[in-house]
Amino acid sequence: MFTSLKLCYLLPCLCSSRGQESAGIVTSNGDNPPTYNTLKGMGLVNNAFPPEELLKLRYGNLGIGHTRYSTTGISELQNCQPFVVDTLHGKIAVAHNGELVNAAALRKKVMRHGVGLSTSSDSELITQLLALTPPMEELDSPDWVARIKNLMQETPTSYSLLLMYTDVIYAIRDPYGNRPLCIGRLVPVSRMQNSGAGEGDTEGWVVSSESCSFQSTGAKYYREVMPGEIVQISKDGIKSLSIVPRPEGDLPAFCIFEYVYFARPDSIFEGQMVYTVRQRCGVQLAIEAPTEADVVSTVPESATPAALGYASKLGLPYVEVLCKNRYVGRTFIQPNTRLRQLGVAKKFGALTDNFAGKRVVLVDDSIVRGNTISPIIKLLKEAGATEVHIRVASPPIRFPCYMGINIPTKEELIANKPEFQDIAGYIGANSVQYLSVEGLLSAVQGGIPSLQDKMISDKPCRRVGHCTACLTGKYPVNLEW
Amino acid sequence: MFTSLKLCYLLPCLCSSRGQESAGIVTSNGDNPPTYNTLKGMGLVNNAFPPEELLKLRYGNLGIGHTRYSTTGISELQNCQPFVVDTLHGKIAVAHNGELVNAAALRKKVMRHGVGLSTSSDSELITQLLALTPPMEELDSPDWVARIKNLMQETPTSYSLLLMYTDVIYAIRDPYGNRPLCIGRLVPVSRMQNSGAGEGDTEGWVVSSESCSFQSTGAKYYREVMPGEIVQISKDGIKSLSIVPRPEGDLPAFCIFEYVYFARPDSIFEGQMVYTVRQRCGVQLAIEAPTEADVVSTVPESATPAALGYASKLGLPYVEVLCKNRYVGRTFIQPNTRLRQLGVAKKFGALTDNFAGKRVVLVDDSIVRGNTISPIIKLLKEAGATEVHIRVASPPIRFPCYMGINIPTKEELIANKPEFQDIAGYIGANSVQYLSVEGLLSAVQGGIPSLQDKMISDKPCRRVGHCTACLTGKYPVNLEW
Amino acid sequence: MFTSLKLCYLLPCLCSSRGQESAGIVTSNGDNPPTYNTLKGMGLVNNAFPPEELLKLRYGNLGIGHTRYSTTGISELQNCQPFVVDTLHGKIAVAHNGELVNAAALRKKVMRHGVGLSTSSDSELITQLLALTPPMEELDSPDWVARIKNLMQETPTSYSLLLMYTDVIYAIRDPYGNRPLCIGRLVPVSRMQNSGAGEGDTEGWVVSSESCSFQSTGAKYYREVMPGEIVQISKDGIKSLSIVPRPEGDLPAFCIFEYVYFARPDSIFEGQMVYTVRQRCGVQLAIEAPTEADVVSTVPESATPAALGYASKLGLPYVEVLCKNRYVGRTFIQPNTRLRQLGVAKKFGALTDNFAGKRVVLVDDSIVRGNTISPIIKLLKEAGATEVHIRVASPPIRFPCYMGINIPTKEELIANKPEFQDIAGYIGANSVQYLSVEGLLSAVQGGIPSLQDKMISDKPCRRVGHCTACLTGKYPVNLEW
Amino acid sequence: MFTSLKLCYLLPCLCSSRGQESAGIVTSNGDNPPTYNTLKGMGLVNNAFPPEELLKLRYGNLGIGHTRYSTTGISELQNCQPFVVDTLHGKIAVAHNGELVNAAALRKKVMRHGVGLSTSSDSELITQLLALTPPMEELDSPDWVARIKNLMQETPTSYSLLLMYTDVIYAIRDPYGNRPLCIGRLVPVSRMQNSGAGEGDTEGWVVSSESCSFQSTGAKYYREVMPGEIVQISKDGIKSLSIVPRPEGDLPAFCIFEYVYFARPDSIFEGQMVYTVRQRCGVQLAIEAPTEADVVSTVPESATPAALGYASKLGLPYVEVLCKNRYVGRTFIQPNTRLRQLGVAKKFGALTDNFAGKRVVLVDDSIVRGNTISPIIKLLKEAGATEVHIRVASPPIRFPCYMGINIPTKEELIANKPEFQDIAGYIGANSVQYLSVEGLLSAVQGGIPSLQDKMISDKPCRRVGHCTACLTGKYPVNLEW
Repeated sequence: MFTSLKLCYLLPCLCSSRGQESAGIVTSNGDNPPTYNTLKGMGLVNNAFPPEELLKLRYGNLGIGHTRYSTTGISELQNCQPFVVDTLHGKIAVAHNGELVNAAALRKKVMRHGVGLSTSSDSELITQLLALTPPMEELDSPDWVARIKNLMQETPTSYSLLLMYTDVIYAIRDPYGNRPLCIGRLVPVSRMQNSGAGEGDTEGWVVSSESCSFQSTGAKYYREVMPGEIVQISKDGIKSLSIVPRPEGDLPAFCIFEYVYFARPDSIFEGQMVYTVRQRCGVQLAIEAPTEADVVSTVPESATPAALGYASKLGLPYVEVLCKNRYVGRTFIQPNTRLRQLGVAKKFGALTDNFAGKRVVLVDDSIVRGNTISPIIKLLKEAGATEVHIRVASPPIRFPCYMGINIPTKEELIANKPEFQDIAGYIGANSVQYLSVEGLLSAVQGGIPSLQDKMISDKPCRRVGHCTACLTGKYPVNLEW
Repeated sequence: MFTSLKLCYLLPCLCSSRGQESAGIVTSNGDNPPTYNTLKGMGLVNNAFPPEELLKLRYGNLGIGHTRYSTTGISELQNCQPFVVDTLHGKIAVAHNGELVNAAALRKKVMRHGVGLSTSSDSELITQLLALTPPMEELDSPDWVARIKNLMQETPTSYSLLLMYTDVIYAIRDPYGNRPLCIGRLVPVSRMQNSGAGEGDTEGWVVSSESCSFQSTGAKYYREVMPGEIVQISKDGIKSLSIVPRPEGDLPAFCIFEYVYFARPDSIFEGQMVYTVRQRCGVQLAIEAPTEADVVSTVPESATPAALGYASKLGLPYVEVLCKNRYVGRTFIQPNTRLRQLGVAKKFGALTDNFAGKRVVLVDDSIVRGNTISPIIKLLKEAGATEVHIRVASPPIRFPCYMGINIPTKEELIANKPEFQDIAGYIGANSVQYLSVEGLLSAVQGGIPSLQDKMISDKPCRRVGHCTACLTGKYPVNLEW
Repeated sequence: MFTSLKLCYLLPCLCSSRGQESAGIVTSNGDNPPTYNTLKGMGLVNNAFPPEELLKLRYGNLGIGHTRYSTTGISELQNCQPFVVDTLHGKIAVAHNGELVNAAALRKKVMRHGVGLSTSSDSELITQLLALTPPMEELDSPDWVARIKNLMQETPTSYSLLLMYTDVIYAIRDPYGNRPLCIGRLVPVSRMQNSGAGEGDTEGWVVSSESCSFQSTGAKYYREVMPGEIVQISKDGIKSLSIVPRPEGDLPAFCIFEYVYFARPDSIFEGQMVYTVRQRCGVQLAIEAPTEADVVSTVPESATPAALGYASKLGLPYVEVLCKNRYVGRTFIQPNTRLRQLGVAKKFGALTDNFAGKRVVLVDDSIVRGNTISPIIKLLKEAGATEVHIRVASPPIRFPCYMGINIPTKEELIANKPEFQDIAGYIGANSVQYLSVEGLLSAVQGGIPSLQDKMISDKPCRRVGHCTACLTGKYPVNLEW
Repeated sequence: MFTSLKLCYLLPCLCSSRGQESAGIVTSNGDNPPTYNTLKGMGLVNNAFPPEELLKLRYGNLGIGHTRYSTTGISELQNCQPFVVDTLHGKIAVAHNGELVNAAALRKKVMRHGVGLSTSSDSELITQLLALTPPMEELDSPDWVARIKNLMQETPTSYSLLLMYTDVIYAIRDPYGNRPLCIGRLVPVSRMQNSGAGEGDTEGWVVSSESCSFQSTGAKYYREVMPGEIVQISKDGIKSLSIVPRPEGDLPAFCIFEYVYFARPDSIFEGQMVYTVRQRCGVQLAIEAPTEADVVSTVPESATPAALGYASKLGLPYVEVLCKNRYVGRTFIQPNTRLRQLGVAKKFGALTDNFAGKRVVLVDDSIVRGNTISPIIKLLKEAGATEVHIRVASPPIRFPCYMGINIPTKEELIANKPEFQDIAGYIGANSVQYLSVEGLLSAVQGGIPSLQDKMISDKPCRRVGHCTACLTGKYPVNLEW
């Protein structure tokens, strides 16, 4: 039986690694009509909420939260999710991850109905679309599921969505499955340990963009929400209500950048751990771009699995060459002439003994602007590396993302600059090589289990397909709205 | 010619005495489409805005602002005015003072159109009503004036409203004129002094709930917005567009409590200064409730004009008996048993020499809950007053206000408690007498000039009429919606 | 019996009107060795201490506190009193009011003993002097009283001092009595009301610069500490230990500016209430400088008693002409050309009806720099006053204070500027007249009871004498050290 | 020539990894008399100082700073270093690292001279000792070097000290060299690159506890300050003034815990890099405590070099098994019953694919209380590890440190608890083994170059010797003072 999703389980699901600008949380006590408690604050989850405010949430047994790394809309408390609106049928709270590709057209449509929009956020747009359609006057009951389906027909991607209404939460993933969303299960300790239930012992369900956030609540990974799926969570448990299909012939388009860079390595997507995919990228990179060198190392910390994969495939020793300084000052070191001239790699210290007099392969996960790798190479060479070869465990990024990932403008991307013709010379490396798009896809897709998600396998759905738009310019849907 | 409403003129019009919970300001650069800059913050105007944020507003030449003393809706930044919404025809910004008597019915109406409301504030409701009606699809152009008139037909009172759209500001007062609104004029210094114009010298118009706020901008009082009037302010100057009438036979219903307590004494309503009205209340009180006593004094500072009026009418000496402590601690003095037993009048010190051995008449402007006057009387008696007679320059408050004034619930009002039967005994006074409703009305209405507002006197409008609902229970409109 | 000086009584004695830059408090639990708890913070008392910190003080039954308006030493937490130092005989805590006239010489003396001084404050200097002298090695016991007497021989003025050591507080006033210090008594409510003692009911003693602070604790004014007196407060009650004499022939030198401006009107000095002294100054001013006028008014709020005295002496009506705006913005109104040209009196609104068409006498308590009275006069004239006569209830300030009052430099004082020759013309008044030094002294000294302080009257001490150095340049002691 | 030690070089030397509670900085403009600018704040260096305050420091060309991790004295701004005191000869500023073993005796000695101590910090004690001794009256000039030597005779250890006086900085290390201190050199970019000098190009000297902080200033490691050495830095460059000897027969006692845990891995002590020493500890551990297992891993991040050394020595594969969550909430996760029962390893995620079905050796750098390793072992086992063997790259900690390292009390140390008899059972591991004290010493001392520091090699000093008191209870000096 569903009992309670207590505060302490809810909060850790606000996965700070996915957004550090603002955080919000809304809980419902589940009564009819319900009492909602809302908290919003700027900054990391830890700091955003004063402790005395958190106590307010104590009485809820369901809730949704959000952390934000702004992609559209300036970073204001007003734009902070979840968005709560009062409708004819009561209050709904909505949190989402992603960016609606046809937001501009949808805004116009909503405003044409006479609705004013008080923010620039997709969240408000989504809530107003849910409130508007289908025409309210034709309905006796709220029927939020019909409205959600309607919304999914209006906008194909990109969003993972949580909608709370009184005593139910709907977890929704867009038909292309562009953004991740997964479900975890809270099992009571007493049952796990055959002991009596203590205070705060609980069973229930949690939903999160990344499975890594489950651990700190004690929840276990259960499964992903499928592309196009609407899952209902209530006191009667979890239920898959519907799968809204994609246009005939379209593949899913799960963001490949989640594997490459964005997600935490211990998260699970499509049945495989992100860390392992990154390791496979390193192995694949070793096949495509082997190097004659003495040691292999990493730009800590995100490139470490790829570096270990690369080293093991080539049989080269893996060593650490850089020590990360966790307390680098952001505000006070005014980059004066001297420091600019020196090009100091302020974030890293050199572990000289491990590479002085040696040829180093340095594996990085991606090179976006090209201005951080250059001082690192200089640091290694000055400290005695005889050669520094850069191997990048992903293809060059060349195109903007319109689906929620914060990528620099086309002009800022190093891969679009003239200097890219001689990228090794530009950054001071002895050689630079990237993983191919095909190599990345095979590293990612090669590990996906063939019979995932049996629970919903009665619905035919072609599962494998990824969005590589930032690498190839091939967007999953037509962007001309 | 209208030139600019610069920052420094706009800000002081945010009259802090009318609201200290939050403050907001929106400016427009007047271009087409316009750029709006918005600032919102909690607390007094002075503290709500960081100086670097204020610089953002520099480029506007028109703007509206608001300070808030919450009556409905919890004190959240989200509820903070002005409210800006994007509509099919561009952005509008709305600030208002008052409380819609039929808000609940209007919320339902708006939501029935499929609009979700994200706050509990009347401001959002007003903006959505303006966006919705009349049906957008029938209109080629925005025609905000038609929409405002429509709004005024939907809700009779209580609101004074500012609506900014691109390069125009509309100043509106509800048909009953329940909340004040007046216009001030900025005359260039150069013209006033026959000297050359300096940087920042400006002409223009300012609008405010209270005329007292004009002074700090150098603006001069021009006139009131009339009940039901829509005034347009643009680069072409000021123009009275329309007066939406009240139902046949209804009088205006300007809030009498503005005179009694709420407004600053140097403000002007209906052609008369608030201070002078309060003085007349004191005179009237002396006629209705004379006292045999040695000295007359005041509960500083708001009751001073009434006390001076009372003393002069009876020919008694006016003295100060209380010294206000401006630094009284609110947070740290935990009222323990001892202090409760002592009933210390912490906010005041006794000026003993002025009243020891004497019979004191203490004039107060109003007695709401009755728990602050009691320790004062005790303080005076312990310090040597032989008698303390309380004279209140307004009638007892017995009824709630649904039009924007924050009055305690019916149960909390001392006038509705059994103790009121022996109010003098209850608060420890030798006698207590109140001004009558008729006395108050004659003190207020006796000073209104007969031929005010010639400028718009071609429109016939019965001018004199006041809302006394909190004293009499007679509300200006039917409250059953 | 002395029982406890609980938190709630201690805190209000930190009289915020005397210092708003920082506040500090130290309590002792009275054990041997004692536990001291210290709180220091910037800003007003109310804001300086977080509530959870205040709870720490709960366990003390004696304590000393301080609020600071910096005269020497920059406003740093480090300079914030009370100053606590650990000595060979245990910890002492010291708080003082005033400024040592020979601080520079004393600093050198202390440092010549090999002591480093970590702040620029007199408090640290006093504690180190107490720790040093007389030579420690000659003493078996701490004998703080001997050390205090020694200190008083080293420095004649200006200080009122509190010294806490374990379970005793010494209250000391310098031999000239330049700074005020008085004692209040806490009587248990139960005894006052013949009822049982409740929790927190207490008897004890409080000491403060101004008696006005006693009221909020429920304490009653008991008496002043005499010039040169050392009073001991302990669980055995209050005891006058000694009176350190002045040099033969010297009079006391209590700061006359405390009467004129600095103290709160409900405080008592030398047996008389400050308010009443100010009223007498107004009467004296009416004798010295009568005016032919229609109304008398005040620059609110500090000049009101003088204005009432002036009006009553001349039989002229007292009215209010200015309304103080309590929420004037300090930070955001950038004084641009326009506002400077207008010379707007931003802090005040004009109560026109009371003076339009009339000749006004405006009484002020003092004119220091002369730049605030000028816009007020302009405001009154523009609003219709036919004449504005300024009467100042104190003589012109011409000399700096070296004894703790924060007076502008000699050059900034209007009385030392060439413009003072035609002060009326300079500030735009029809006439300006000041109270004479003799007039001020007679107003102050005329009301001092002849047989004050019987309790200690066995000691012969010439009581009447005031420091008028800022008015006359006659300092009570030689300043050449 | 020595020119300037500009702000941007000074600040990064405040090595945040060594103290995060408070930070302070004092600069001198070098004039006679000098102007000192002081900044102090709570928290990390980055946050402790508001940017506008930092600008104040701009005019100095020498300065000293400090970050604090409190070992004695509560964390108050007052205790925050550097400590500045005014003496007869002018102001000195002092910052130190370490803890005086005979502080209590020295406090008494200072107080016996009649000096009051206003803080509980060693810094104030040191400044007062410097001010006091030798007797000031015997000296015509300040002679700080004589005073420093005197101080070093009064207290043998533990301190590294910076003393700034007008235009000179003295860098001092105690005779046992217990705390680290090293010197870096700023070489102008122009000379390095044969180009013209730009604005801000500088030469000079920097001093720091750890060499890792030099990099972000562009300074190069120069050499260590030797045990007992007094180094003078002025505009005439760097000069070794004296080496104060230890008692005959005593070895140096450099803190071995700096190698084991405290220092950043890219720092250099005694001619060797900390990272490399830790790697050697892993190798030595593999010799002393080999394991039959499938993979070797680390508790990230500090144990990684030891784990890599261990794995390479045994020829076992090194893999990552734990993923660190950088955003773990400290404040809000109330450890309720459920979470306590689950014993969740909140800070780490499991990288399951790397160890499921395998025998894992987990290398940690030290086990202090034993309550963090236990949930990690549980996490690994639940995720599929068949065996988990703990290998600790240092001996058990059994004794308190009185020399500046913040180690729990004897009772809290797991090595002193009964459970330590079956430590493996207690923490749930299959086996637990520690490095021996001899093994640690050989790993540390085996890599020290034999002819370090030629520059001062004319002074005979036996260089190799380490404090192992926390492991062995053998303190370098007698602690009975």
